[in-house]
Amino acid sequence: MKTGQVIFQPSGRRGEIPEGKTVLEASRILGVGIESVCGGKKSCGKCLVRLESGSFERYGITSNPDHLSPFTEEEADFIGKEEREAGFRLACAAAIRGDLVLFVPEGSRTGAQVIRKDAGQREILLNPAVRLFTVTLRPPGLENPKADYERLAAALKDRFGIPQPAIDYPALIALPGALRKGNWTVTAALRMEREILAVFPGEVEEVYGLAIDVGTTTVAGYLCSLKTGKVIATGSIMNPQVAYGEDVISRITYVIDQPDGLEKMRGAVIDGLNRLIRTVAADAKLSPADILEVTLVGNTAMHHLLLGIDPRPLGVAPFTPTVHRSLDIKARDLGLLTHPAANVHILPIEAGFVGADNVGVLIAEEPYRRDEISLIIDVGTNGEMILGNRAHLLSASCATGPALEGAHIRFGMRAAPGAIERIRIAPGTWDVSFKIIGEEGWRPEFPITGALGICGSGIIDGVAELYRAGIIDRSGRFRTDLSTPRLLLNDGKPEFVIAWPQETSLQTAITISQQDVRSVQLAKGALYAGAKLMMKKLGIDKLDRVVLAGAFGSYIDKTEAMTLGMFPDCDLPFVSSVGNAAGDGARIALLNRDKRREAEEMAGRVEYLELTLSPDFQEEFMAAMFIPHMLDAFPHLPSKKTSPG
Amino acid sequence: MKTGQVIFQPSGRRGEIPEGKTVLEASRILGVGIESVCGGKKSCGKCLVRLESGSFERYGITSNPDHLSPFTEEEADFIGKEEREAGFRLACAAAIRGDLVLFVPEGSRTGAQVIRKDAGQREILLNPAVRLFTVTLRPPGLENPKADYERLAAALKDRFGIPQPAIDYPALIALPGALRKGNWTVTAALRMEREILAVFPGEVEEVYGLAIDVGTTTVAGYLCSLKTGKVIATGSIMNPQVAYGEDVISRITYVIDQPDGLEKMRGAVIDGLNRLIRTVAADAKLSPADILEVTLVGNTAMHHLLLGIDPRPLGVAPFTPTVHRSLDIKARDLGLLTHPAANVHILPIEAGFVGADNVGVLIAEEPYRRDEISLIIDVGTNGEMILGNRAHLLSASCATGPALEGAHIRFGMRAAPGAIERIRIAPGTWDVSFKIIGEEGWRPEFPITGALGICGSGIIDGVAELYRAGIIDRSGRFRTDLSTPRLLLNDGKPEFVIAWPQETSLQTAITISQQDVRSVQLAKGALYAGAKLMMKKLGIDKLDRVVLAGAFGSYIDKTEAMTLGMFPDCDLPFVSSVGNAAGDGARIALLNRDKRREAEEMAGRVEYLELTLSPDFQEEFMAAMFIPHMLDAFPHLPSKKTSPG
Repeated sequence: MKTGQVIFQPSGRRGEIPEGKTVLEASRILGVGIESVCGGKKSCGKCLVRLESGSFERYGITSNPDHLSPFTEEEADFIGKEEREAGFRLACAAAIRGDLVLFVPEGSRTGAQVIRKDAGQREILLNPAVRLFTVTLRPPGLENPKADYERLAAALKDRFGIPQPAIDYPALIALPGALRKGNWTVTAALRMEREILAVFPGEVEEVYGLAIDVGTTTVAGYLCSLKTGKVIATGSIMNPQVAYGEDVISRITYVIDQPDGLEKMRGAVIDGLNRLIRTVAADAKLSPADILEVTLVGNTAMHHLLLGIDPRPLGVAPFTPTVHRSLDIKARDLGLLTHPAANVHILPIEAGFVGADNVGVLIAEEPYRRDEISLIIDVGTNGEMILGNRAHLLSASCATGPALEGAHIRFGMRAAPGAIERIRIAPGTWDVSFKIIGEEGWRPEFPITGALGICGSGIIDGVAELYRAGIIDRSGRFRTDLSTPRLLLNDGKPEFVIAWPQETSLQTAITISQQDVRSVQLAKGALYAGAKLMMKKLGIDKLDRVVLAGAFGSYIDKTEAMTLGMFPDCDLPFVSSVGNAAGDGARIALLNRDKRREAEEMAGRVEYLELTLSPDFQEEFMAAMFIPHMLDAFPHLPSKKTSPG
Repeated sequence: MKTGQVIFQPSGRRGEIPEGKTVLEASRILGVGIESVCGGKKSCGKCLVRLESGSFERYGITSNPDHLSPFTEEEADFIGKEEREAGFRLACAAAIRGDLVLFVPEGSRTGAQVIRKDAGQREILLNPAVRLFTVTLRPPGLENPKADYERLAAALKDRFGIPQPAIDYPALIALPGALRKGNWTVTAALRMEREILAVFPGEVEEVYGLAIDVGTTTVAGYLCSLKTGKVIATGSIMNPQVAYGEDVISRITYVIDQPDGLEKMRGAVIDGLNRLIRTVAADAKLSPADILEVTLVGNTAMHHLLLGIDPRPLGVAPFTPTVHRSLDIKARDLGLLTHPAANVHILPIEAGFVGADNVGVLIAEEPYRRDEISLIIDVGTNGEMILGNRAHLLSASCATGPALEGAHIRFGMRAAPGAIERIRIAPGTWDVSFKIIGEEGWRPEFPITGALGICGSGIIDGVAELYRAGIIDRSGRFRTDLSTPRLLLNDGKPEFVIAWPQETSLQTAITISQQDVRSVQLAKGALYAGAKLMMKKLGIDKLDRVVLAGAFGSYIDKTEAMTLGMFPDCDLPFVSSVGNAAGDGARIALLNRDKRREAEEMAGRVEYLELTLSPDFQEEFMAAMFIPHMLDAFPHLPSKKTSPG
């Protein structure tokens, strides 16, 4: 029987599927929740999926339209020309004919949202950079032959008090047609009340913007109405630069090694952004040209690679970026498929390794408005931290590696259905309870058979619980004298079984190994040491608040994180998780232009601390490798959670 | 014997040349002066000519590289790759194999310049929009890790007091490389001290700009050093839009008739400008990317067609343009091959038919700085006039047609070698003296055999002299009772011989016909009537100054022009010719940014008078058709020149 390797995004679930099965059937085999109201009769149109075309080197497969059965007439009822070009299919109509990577858009997914993509909780004052102004002009006559632009400018002044805005070239070209088609009523889209970006015939009510968070691994986009402030579509893609290197350093190395490396990576991410733009626009039944403003955050390397700026100086001391300040670049100059007059506002960069994403976190969290001392940890592939209050702000960057995201962990995976996200280990019996994403209950009360791996929050839980249960000591070393079948020796190296083979989809047990524990210790030690050095610099010995940011920050159990010693002691009610604050920052800057000034000001006010320059770093790092720490006390850690050893 | 039709530009000389002759030989046969120091031995490289490729509908020929013998090794010593691509050949090496249009660049021409291209006479204060600033920066270190842009901005502030300039995207990309290649000494090109356009490694001394005058028929470019203000290369091409219509109205009609007409014409003129840019840059041994600022003038239709703005509203009452104000558009947005960060500053437009070219005339002539009343006539395919002084300025446009340029005249031609440019007719004997461009002496003292036609100044002289000698009366009608062999009847229609067949290269006599006289009367009548209506509007009855502008304005005999009645009476010492004042205006705006503000202000201050709306227009026009006028007196016309009848 011929099979195809099928991978569903964003969940990451994969498996070999017999050719001829539909995508909907495959999703059920692999436990991916796809909505289907009609039960596969091609009549409800709910099971939309999107084919990701191209060579996916990290998976060793190539996904292309020929690996699906041809587009059917029934699908055309639900899928327009643009969406079809963007790769959309009905899961119930498309049959598998080879290797495939398929993306399940938010609207097609069943059950709870796993990746917390928007921060609907934040209150954002609506004051967007781009606004619409509708005016009706007196038509020209021989006694009043004023030019179109001057006529429009006069009306904008009379009606709205806007003095003499500039006009972007595409708008100038559109102007005479729009005025005459709209019978002298037009709607002008103005940026900052200073530049006419576009002119539409008649009255237009809505204008849209897109906030983009370019992560090293994932690129997320939030399409917003600039009239209501609402997020009307979200999307995410893998950063296509992953093909050239998984982390920042390997991508910089690629630029060093390959003469056209920079141009290739720039092109790849721009192509990716254009795919993202097309799909979020299609999801909202809009055209990409309806997007008139873009904000963008990303770490410094992503920022440089996206702009085509040589990142090599970022890779060697003193790690100098090309620019700190925010930039406004025309979408057409970047090659983005939004309205050509749209501007891309790129938030400022603080320092070499503290990028525009961290500035996004800063304006989302606003530690500079508080008297209390906040420690904000944005845990991604790098750990970026902010410490301070209204009086003083410090930032630092820690090379944590991706262990805390579940990567470079033997059974690590991304936070997606099937991932073990919670772990509890009973001291004494060493029995394990766990919970996977996509299922409501906990093992063993709720029988689980589909575990696929351990995600970031799971690995933090796991190592903290191994320590709390006395299976590893404060130095991270496994005790090998325990009598439990869960403790295995693999080539003499100890590992601890979290899920038995029958509880997984892997035909093997999911374990945490000594090596995994070391990776977590290195990562958390780097964070803790960084936080300590920042506190020393600020002359404080206690934190009032700890904020965990980052896409997976929401899923971390804060007690377990403190048990592990990810950050210095803090009163637990004042430790909080805020989700993708960098993306929130991009969205805030999209919806409220005043926050851009604030971002610029604050990025300039934050003092960057280069941790590796500190003579105490090695010593702090060594001490912080212990669980929770070699020396520091954690008075706020519940006593029942403190280690027995 | 096979021959090819060969046309030399800019002189316009043409003839059938046997195939196999070199271009240099052809130039001698047709009387075109091409420099050749080595005498055709392919060793001096002075005889550079440029092949104009394409279909030249107005001449009924197609010119292409196959109509010349293949490029030779010897030519490669003098012609680089770029110049070769631009069509350059050595006239002594390239042999004729078919129909050809060849351009003789200024540097290859022998003898006097015919077309007065630059206005070296004008004193221009040098204050260009783009200037260079060289700074040496302290290299970054771990204790001082400021980004490249911020480091440069700080140095510009310290050294030159320039506060925080913006940086254009291409400059941002170039910045890290330039700083490191220049060992932290760089030269930044700034526009208005507000935007960094480019950054070069090390110390750079020169920066260049290009002033462009886009005429309906001819496009002229002046490449200037922005450091010295000197013109370092000039060039001109035929406006490629000529293929779609000779005048403004026929081009607007083409847009109406052809769905892609606008895009075609926009593309054609942009391609033409890029050719011009390549050739002037090559003439100055520069790269197009060395051009960092462009200024551009042109009439309103040329302005719109070049920008891709729908010109149809210009073609119907109330003749509304899309924009009056000046524009700054990035060269990359227009598709020009200069440095991508260069800006194209397009001078403002006054009214539908009074364009940016007239604003160029305005800032070159500055009538607004005088107490005397000036009448400035820019005679091109349209006649555009300015009347006024510091207190009040009026402008108007007259549909003169191209007769005054020598077009639509039976033996009319452009001002080029072989053109009859001066005519005198002796009353009583009716013998004719004349002079052609390219020869020093006058017939009959100096025997002339190569007359090709009559140019604009010649036709003005001719009609004025026909009148002064009593051959035509004040209504323009020929007297048919004169006994002179020069007065011929052609199908019963009188014409007067200026040059006998043996004095021409045409095997036929060059004459002025009744029809030619009527064309001149219509054109001059329109100008005169326009001037009269403007004077009425301003409440004045006498002119203090008359300024004749336009490429051929320099060659008009002002006494003959007043004899003809091209403009109302004025004291002759106060009538002057100023050449291509529109092109001068572009060059002035290129070299002195303050004049751009002045242009904007003055374009707004000029009051446009729509002549066709005046109830007196027809009456004034009828009276002005008479020579010099039906009613008006010309007290300043020398009595010996007044008509006997």
